[in-house]
Amino acid sequence: MASSYRAPVEDMRFALYDVLGAEALFGKLGFDEATRDVLDAILDEAARFTETVLSPLNEVGDRVGCEYDKATGDVRTPPGFREAYRKFVEGGWSGLVSPPEFGGQGLPHLAGLPLKEMIDAANLAWGNFPLLSHGATEALLHHGEDWQREAFLKPIVEGRWTGTMCLTESHCGTDLGLLKTRAEPQADGSYSITGTKIFITAGEHDFTDNIVHLVLARLPDAPAGVKGISLFIVPKMRVGRDGAMGERNAVRCGALEHKMGIHGSATCVINFDGAQGWLIGAANKGLSAMFTMMNTARLAVGLQGLGLSDRAYQNALRYARDRLQMRSLSGAKFPDRPADPIIVHPDVRRMLLTCKALVEGGRLLGYHGASLVDVGSHATDHAERKQAEDLLGFLTPIVKACLTEWGVECTYHALQCFGGHGYIAEHGMEQLARDARITTLYEGTTGIQALDLMGRKVMQQQAAGLQVFLGMIDAFCTQHADDASLAEFIGPLREKAAQWQALTMQVGQRAVANADEVGAAAYDYLFYSGYVALAYWWARSVAAADASSRSAEFKTAKRETARFYFARVLPRTNTHAQAMAAGAETLMAMPDSAFDS
Amino acid sequence: MASSYRAPVEDMRFALYDVLGAEALFGKLGFDEATRDVLDAILDEAARFTETVLSPLNEVGDRVGCEYDKATGDVRTPPGFREAYRKFVEGGWSGLVSPPEFGGQGLPHLAGLPLKEMIDAANLAWGNFPLLSHGATEALLHHGEDWQREAFLKPIVEGRWTGTMCLTESHCGTDLGLLKTRAEPQADGSYSITGTKIFITAGEHDFTDNIVHLVLARLPDAPAGVKGISLFIVPKMRVGRDGAMGERNAVRCGALEHKMGIHGSATCVINFDGAQGWLIGAANKGLSAMFTMMNTARLAVGLQGLGLSDRAYQNALRYARDRLQMRSLSGAKFPDRPADPIIVHPDVRRMLLTCKALVEGGRLLGYHGASLVDVGSHATDHAERKQAEDLLGFLTPIVKACLTEWGVECTYHALQCFGGHGYIAEHGMEQLARDARITTLYEGTTGIQALDLMGRKVMQQQAAGLQVFLGMIDAFCTQHADDASLAEFIGPLREKAAQWQALTMQVGQRAVANADEVGAAAYDYLFYSGYVALAYWWARSVAAADASSRSAEFKTAKRETARFYFARVLPRTNTHAQAMAAGAETLMAMPDSAFDS
Repeated sequence: MASSYRAPVEDMRFALYDVLGAEALFGKLGFDEATRDVLDAILDEAARFTETVLSPLNEVGDRVGCEYDKATGDVRTPPGFREAYRKFVEGGWSGLVSPPEFGGQGLPHLAGLPLKEMIDAANLAWGNFPLLSHGATEALLHHGEDWQREAFLKPIVEGRWTGTMCLTESHCGTDLGLLKTRAEPQADGSYSITGTKIFITAGEHDFTDNIVHLVLARLPDAPAGVKGISLFIVPKMRVGRDGAMGERNAVRCGALEHKMGIHGSATCVINFDGAQGWLIGAANKGLSAMFTMMNTARLAVGLQGLGLSDRAYQNALRYARDRLQMRSLSGAKFPDRPADPIIVHPDVRRMLLTCKALVEGGRLLGYHGASLVDVGSHATDHAERKQAEDLLGFLTPIVKACLTEWGVECTYHALQCFGGHGYIAEHGMEQLARDARITTLYEGTTGIQALDLMGRKVMQQQAAGLQVFLGMIDAFCTQHADDASLAEFIGPLREKAAQWQALTMQVGQRAVANADEVGAAAYDYLFYSGYVALAYWWARSVAAADASSRSAEFKTAKRETARFYFARVLPRTNTHAQAMAAGAETLMAMPDSAFDS
Repeated sequence: MASSYRAPVEDMRFALYDVLGAEALFGKLGFDEATRDVLDAILDEAARFTETVLSPLNEVGDRVGCEYDKATGDVRTPPGFREAYRKFVEGGWSGLVSPPEFGGQGLPHLAGLPLKEMIDAANLAWGNFPLLSHGATEALLHHGEDWQREAFLKPIVEGRWTGTMCLTESHCGTDLGLLKTRAEPQADGSYSITGTKIFITAGEHDFTDNIVHLVLARLPDAPAGVKGISLFIVPKMRVGRDGAMGERNAVRCGALEHKMGIHGSATCVINFDGAQGWLIGAANKGLSAMFTMMNTARLAVGLQGLGLSDRAYQNALRYARDRLQMRSLSGAKFPDRPADPIIVHPDVRRMLLTCKALVEGGRLLGYHGASLVDVGSHATDHAERKQAEDLLGFLTPIVKACLTEWGVECTYHALQCFGGHGYIAEHGMEQLARDARITTLYEGTTGIQALDLMGRKVMQQQAAGLQVFLGMIDAFCTQHADDASLAEFIGPLREKAAQWQALTMQVGQRAVANADEVGAAAYDYLFYSGYVALAYWWARSVAAADASSRSAEFKTAKRETARFYFARVLPRTNTHAQAMAAGAETLMAMPDSAFDS
């Protein structure tokens, strides 16, 4: 039996309405259309679409994968993928959170998150095609000239074309300063782009008539390194200033990569051979324009980890209830059956509860990040915007790294619940584990996220975002200081918040003296931060559940999961704190030549 | 470039001679043949065989896999596998540690470990074929009648036939009490075996003329549950009491499983349709006979995790030295190159050092376990045997679970060092991660290992094995109490040993009151134990290296890796200790119906 997916609409509503107060927030930010009725309708329709259209294609996407035609350079997507994309566009999903002036529905970013999570859970590989369009949309919105937005943005928002991000070359991924793709200015104001890009997600496919590549390249007189990189729009089919689609551009898919997973996602080598391109944004400022795309893309990849975690958990839970094996050590729980279902075993419950705690807590971590995108761009108060931007900058690497690493962990636990059957393709659990593995790598590895957090957000920006978050924790703890039913969470949360502040100071001071301390502490600092952030969201979840009119079972589930989290997951912070305290010496003292065995 | 493998002969010698004192041990146990010259020659030849014959077949084994012929039920192994097996047999490797009276070379179990590790690292999938023979050898040696040993054991030891272990059925894996395969007594003293077994590793292949299945089944009058299980020898080709191979038995491979990894290893559905079998050992005592095989098999699967970890580490290290990307935060280390090799980055070193610490420490954990097999079976002193058996029983689940989970972890880190390239098949890193994933599942999942440790070895046997190990730690710490150069390790080790003892008492006492506490603490207790055991081996490694005539760089490498381990890995014990202290309530309070989101 293949893996299945049911959209967790109930918990999504809880996250949006009960915890994050989305209704009030959207009203305050001027999203008059984003009423609860509209949001509820979106949730239900998105659930229907992803459960019935996308999820059934998840297995075939893995088994058949994308196919490359060497003769033509074309890519054929797996059976059903193209048709599902047509339905996606017809359903109006492509422009959900894009501006109305370009054909979008103008909903807040946060309102698009549940759809995003559902797509990722239902069919991660398929979801990469519309995801990349979203990145191109952001870049065009913020950096495109008027004619570029008219010509390229509208078809993308309407789903008629899709987008890509062409950064990586074979010798440079993280270090874009090394890139070699060239852009030669032409008489008509366009540029001739030449070079080879690798790992281009959705770089070629059969969904749409055109594909809009956003390409990093160097102008002839560009300075060396990252200060000499410019961003170009390079469509597969040429597009003039009038927006009319012309002949085929000199852009061709040279190969598809054979990967561990996401076989339904086309990972392309793209050759630009004097292709016509258009400069977007200022010359030599391409990297900052690209970062506009990358930050939302990082939040989006975090959601991929979350979606996979949830799907994996749902299937492990079903299996744990169905599979009869051994008796409970404390006496048979179902004496009339040949054995007890494995959910009675404490160690199986440990794995399930770990998933539940990371999924439901992680959902709030990710959705809160998305809400900051809306506040940062729509709040009327400047200081409020600034705070949201600081916090978003601080949280983005945490959301990306934690949700994806937890995706690896949750798909691990869920597979493990199946025992040997988890290793067999037919149950679909091993696909989830393989698919999850990419998320800690693309859009910046976990190590890169950690460096971004520690180097930029803590050191360069004096941890401004952390102060905002600590303020939120303090406000919550103060608000509930006399609430006996929350005391078991408030106390430890206050302690962890104080330790977070102290550790940040300590690492920061050491890093001033030795820059290697930044890299030496980064990974552990990031996860320390992620686990404390989750403790905050779990404490708030208990408070929000209790304050709601939900069922007693719902409230019990939140409270017991929070207790599990505080008792058995949050202690990981101690290991991370100790590792951080060990400092750079424990990593740097070893001579490079002595690593061999 | 595919992944490569170089046998770590130098560190193996260090483990065997300098730390474990294998020469003296073998002499004392009466293995007169196992001189250092012989052992060194075996190491060198095994390295040559695995590096040049097996390792080059690792990638093709994954890509092509085993193929099933539905018409005949035959299985074709990947190109080159059969020829490699022929060389393995010709080289005399199959009987290295088997008794001379059955054609073996009679070397100690420990002397076979480096070969085993090298095979697993070079080609895990291929290694499963001879591995399963080893299990059958053990069962026949300990439980077979004379004629059975003559008829079946000799061809297996000589490599002319291979063996299997047929336990699992579709509805029962862990819970063998549920198994349904039947055995009907026949007039000639044989039995007619009928039933379907799944997940049978090496169940069918083209290496040899015959395959000897060891099958668990029920006699007609057998009691229900695990007390009614008997063990049978069921060869693919019938074999009479005279040892002559006759006609085809009613044994047929019904299908091959499609798996996440180890594609070159044939995982078979085996149908027994009134097949001729022979009872081995006493009726209804099949499970204990099977455990004879299972314990050595569990140590062997632990070694698989170790082998994969080492191969993954070697390739990550090579890549980290070659791949140029970004500058060191503390200033360019190779200013003449376009960027620094990524080994300069602290976070990359964190991943590499984690692998190195787990591989080299894990090697001692595994090899020490193997040495206990030899002491337990060959020591002349009864008390010494008993101690070794107690300790071996205690360590077996730790070796199996830790080395395999660390295998998942190390292949994770190694892939991560490659960034996006790690996800692409051509580098071979993703294969190692997929292959490693089976090791935490077969021969008892990690959760089952933990229950074996906590339920049997701690609760039922009053942690007798732990007391032996604590004695070893105490002896070492006392011996080096005045050694200033070891003080940084001795102090923390003593503390951890005391905590280990205390935690064992606490959990034991709670478990007496509530049996669910066994299952609730088991996982964390196992890993707590594994990390403290590794701390002991790292401290001993530093002492042994310093006492040896090895190079200064070798000594530095051991010391710095030990420092890294104590500072950044050993703190994981604190999280495990806290999770254990949380008790069963945090796992059991959640109502089964409330797990859904």
